[in-house]
Amino acid sequence: MQSSEYIFGLRAIIEAVESGKEIDKVFLKKDLHGDLATELIDLLRANRIVCQRVPVEKLNRITRKNHQGAIAMISAISYHRLDYLVPELFEQGAVPFVVMLDGITDVRNFGAIARTCECAGVHAVVIPSHGSVSVGADAVKTSAGALLHLPVCRVDSLVSAVRYLKESGFNVIGITEKTTNSFSKLDYTAPTALVLGSEDTGISPQVLAQCTDRGSIPMFGRIGSLNVSVAAGIAIYGVVQSRLDAGFER
Amino acid sequence: MQSSEYIFGLRAIIEAVESGKEIDKVFLKKDLHGDLATELIDLLRANRIVCQRVPVEKLNRITRKNHQGAIAMISAISYHRLDYLVPELFEQGAVPFVVMLDGITDVRNFGAIARTCECAGVHAVVIPSHGSVSVGADAVKTSAGALLHLPVCRVDSLVSAVRYLKESGFNVIGITEKTTNSFSKLDYTAPTALVLGSEDTGISPQVLAQCTDRGSIPMFGRIGSLNVSVAAGIAIYGVVQSRLDAGFER
Repeated sequence: MQSSEYIFGLRAIIEAVESGKEIDKVFLKKDLHGDLATELIDLLRANRIVCQRVPVEKLNRITRKNHQGAIAMISAISYHRLDYLVPELFEQGAVPFVVMLDGITDVRNFGAIARTCECAGVHAVVIPSHGSVSVGADAVKTSAGALLHLPVCRVDSLVSAVRYLKESGFNVIGITEKTTNSFSKLDYTAPTALVLGSEDTGISPQVLAQCTDRGSIPMFGRIGSLNVSVAAGIAIYGVVQSRLDAGFER
Repeated sequence: MQSSEYIFGLRAIIEAVESGKEIDKVFLKKDLHGDLATELIDLLRANRIVCQRVPVEKLNRITRKNHQGAIAMISAISYHRLDYLVPELFEQGAVPFVVMLDGITDVRNFGAIARTCECAGVHAVVIPSHGSVSVGADAVKTSAGALLHLPVCRVDSLVSAVRYLKESGFNVIGITEKTTNSFSKLDYTAPTALVLGSEDTGISPQVLAQCTDRGSIPMFGRIGSLNVSVAAGIAIYGVVQSRLDAGFER
């Protein structure tokens, strides 16, 4: 990990937050306490920045310098707010198309999906604050730079984000093997959100329950499971094709 | 590298070849000579097994044991012959669908493409003997086991293989950005071969010149380049969808 990707020390992190620097998450030593630590923790909470309590050994592996029990991971990108972005898209006259990733933790898969989204003209990627990848330099690199152009929205709750999109007129389609509907038979000409889950556990039941529809990718072999970045590519281009067929210009 | 993936020593390799063991390629020390070495080299040539002359340091990195200047890489799979497989597919009443990979050297990409092929019911993958991946244990692992079910044909010349497929009634479609035709507008109901090239150089001009048609994947963003395993997935499922729409049962 490069030192440009993190900041350490209580005072330094407080200043970084106050100056508006984009922070992915903060690792705090398990038994960290004191006035300055309390100030930092309150500030992180007020700014809704994810904190994680970890053993001091984890911090020592990131840096050998005097970290004072706190290391902040700097984000390589600036996150967008979904509730600002969606109205903007409507104002621009777009028929929005967003991709939501539920529990994708592998940086290579995340980067490849972001790259596909950028190529396909997807308007934004939505990821949850917890249980998702950190968008650091590695993710930007595996995305072939796509993450520098593609808006990424980080939300506290994917379930709430799905509800918000539905209220905004979106069809929210879960790509899952838990249906006999082929994804290619669905209508994507309305504002559309595709939801993709992790390879091992799929879309979480809470999120899937909120989806307006489900689509599966037809399977003919014995192994019956695609790499998630390949599945994402197939589904995303299903939307692209359906919109091109309907005469959308882009 | 596990020792189960290679055999070393002149006599041992000769015996392996004579017993019909599937060998990917043989590394020979640059200045290897002698009667037994000549016998081995003649045998490899007769069996069309790829040989590569390398500095002794490369051999020493593979094993510290007494390799006598020769190490054979064992293939994790048995290769099929394209000219046996294609007539068999026709006899079974299939409308064959094969995927040809030109210059894909990254094992992860190769594995992911094989996985997609198996899921999509592709009948075979065709790779060239030279300038392609070695199908070892790593490739099988990244394919999620697909390579144990999916026939892989290794050919001396991809150009000749394309000619052979055309003579057998195939449409051979190059997936390339060097066309304005969308891949989704092509007809895939005849016997079909899709050709995919490497991310950096694409399909080689000699192979592309032999293709019956070209199809591109529509691009809308700024970076304009998909990961090759994602591009393969999109194109392969384009064929699947087109055949499903045409009423093919599988």
